[in-house]
Amino acid sequence: MATPAGGLTAEVLEVGSLAELKALPENGAAGKIVYLHVVMKRSAGFEGYGEAVPARSQGAVAAANKGAVAVLVRSIGTGGGQLVHTGAMRYDDSVAKIPTGALSAEDGDLLHRLRARGPVKVRLDLSTKHEGMVKSANVVGDWKGKDRAEEIVLVGAHLDSWDLGLGALDDAAGVGMALDTVRTLSKLGLRPRRTVRVVLFMNEEFGLSGAFAYAASHAAELGKHVAAFEADAGAGKPTGIGVVGNAAAVKWLGGLTAPIAALPAVRSVEEAGADLIPMRPAGVPGLAVLQDVSHYFDWHHTTADTVDKIDPAELAAASAALATTVFVVADAPDTLPRVPTPLKPR
Amino acid sequence: MATPAGGLTAEVLEVGSLAELKALPENGAAGKIVYLHVVMKRSAGFEGYGEAVPARSQGAVAAANKGAVAVLVRSIGTGGGQLVHTGAMRYDDSVAKIPTGALSAEDGDLLHRLRARGPVKVRLDLSTKHEGMVKSANVVGDWKGKDRAEEIVLVGAHLDSWDLGLGALDDAAGVGMALDTVRTLSKLGLRPRRTVRVVLFMNEEFGLSGAFAYAASHAAELGKHVAAFEADAGAGKPTGIGVVGNAAAVKWLGGLTAPIAALPAVRSVEEAGADLIPMRPAGVPGLAVLQDVSHYFDWHHTTADTVDKIDPAELAAASAALATTVFVVADAPDTLPRVPTPLKPR
Repeated sequence: MATPAGGLTAEVLEVGSLAELKALPENGAAGKIVYLHVVMKRSAGFEGYGEAVPARSQGAVAAANKGAVAVLVRSIGTGGGQLVHTGAMRYDDSVAKIPTGALSAEDGDLLHRLRARGPVKVRLDLSTKHEGMVKSANVVGDWKGKDRAEEIVLVGAHLDSWDLGLGALDDAAGVGMALDTVRTLSKLGLRPRRTVRVVLFMNEEFGLSGAFAYAASHAAELGKHVAAFEADAGAGKPTGIGVVGNAAAVKWLGGLTAPIAALPAVRSVEEAGADLIPMRPAGVPGLAVLQDVSHYFDWHHTTADTVDKIDPAELAAASAALATTVFVVADAPDTLPRVPTPLKPR
Repeated sequence: MATPAGGLTAEVLEVGSLAELKALPENGAAGKIVYLHVVMKRSAGFEGYGEAVPARSQGAVAAANKGAVAVLVRSIGTGGGQLVHTGAMRYDDSVAKIPTGALSAEDGDLLHRLRARGPVKVRLDLSTKHEGMVKSANVVGDWKGKDRAEEIVLVGAHLDSWDLGLGALDDAAGVGMALDTVRTLSKLGLRPRRTVRVVLFMNEEFGLSGAFAYAASHAAELGKHVAAFEADAGAGKPTGIGVVGNAAAVKWLGGLTAPIAALPAVRSVEEAGADLIPMRPAGVPGLAVLQDVSHYFDWHHTTADTVDKIDPAELAAASAALATTVFVVADAPDTLPRVPTPLKPR
């Protein structure tokens, strides 16, 4: 939401975490601009992001619940260099929709230091607006399987990106990996038994509407989706293969990939890609090549998500791991167990 | 210079170096926007900067000499992250004063890639203007010497910074080191024989006018300036002590500092600090603590030159090296040889 014309000036109430904000007494932030001083930790996996990102996504509702007039969050990222990291945030009709912004790490740290000395007022002037939904499309392409063509192994990535940068890492790299899977297997003459379907989802970033539309339009076929991969973790080198599910799923996939010594280890993960979430109620097993994201969040959702951040050798390794895994899953004698899971409220 | 109202659109002529620009035939850039694709190398000393910076400082004159209508330079810095590095550039009354701008590394690389595919036009809209000179002041403070108080060891740094950032590294860190020299020696009861004069120069960045004013106002005393230090290399750890001069100067200073095992080696340097240049004709020996600048140019002259870039332990080590060296020079039985040097045309 935008601030009123001329901006909004209020005293800053700093909290160190979303939990601290939620623990404030009723009206504990009345009339204040809440500042969430959350310093994201760097990690090779998504742990650091997973821990920090609720401050951005849930901060507005939590702050409004305590009477705040606006909320600022220290950029959810590891970058610095005055980069501002944007990203999805939610409003809730039960509370006021308050203006919400991100500060660069430097500006957040400055505010933090100033607050340590005494009260700080901030004038906030945001012109953010929602311009309404427009019609767009997913891009879907099938590479028919040899003899079980009605069974589908989906390989997804997303077409949209945050508008600050070019989306080279998020998610042009993933789009490249998904397309390259079919290109590579086809070039090698490795056509699997099942159909490989590349799906380039629209609007992953702003509510998964493309993914929900896919799940709805293809509801009748989801029972034949024997697996769905997503490549949405940048261009880093592969560190493992993730499968959403229990030890049986890990064992099944490990059995297929073990003969290929170059493939990294199979691990159980909670999520393999946001665009796969709408297929959970149908029990479509989710998979992903896990990638090193140590530096992904230096650039994620910023003006600096540009093609120069991609190491072609690392991306090629991730791409090769994806193509290989997709092949063995699409060509396997049997399929992963299906565990239909209701969607969590988001 | 600003572009004409509404901007300026022209085809880009890319060159890989200032030398390549200067080697163009007469009118070889007529009507073009010259883009200097100069990629600065990272180095622990100033070599990388020294090699790259003439593209920024001399690019406008060189491009105008070949008929260009504007000039763009890839940011002189090692940072990336869409940071734009500003800095001094010169015009020359003999040629047109053309609009001049810096591109971030990312945008420069993009232009470079586009140019490799074919002709590229750029629309440039710059509102840069020179608002005229204003009156300001250097800050000068003396700590009188014990018995040769008329002899002066100057310890300088500069008060101004490029306006994009806060100037934490360039040159608040140096100002801190200069002030800390007197604080530390005084606290330790180490008052030297000669006077230590701290000079915080105004306007180093935009033509050294503070330094020229100092040299002019203190012309009568410059013969008694036995040495002048400047701290203007960020907040990195000390890597040596630099002295402008020959082997004899290095030997003299090495003899004083050798007993202090913790001090890094003495080396001959071409320049010890820009603010010391106007004192060269009077033969004032220039010195500096050399510092690790491997990451200084990630932030130099950008919005991200902020206090969080300073490692307090590294800065303290540089500060200690400066205080110690200033003491031994200010307390030495004799002084450095003086080699009056005429100023080079700038």
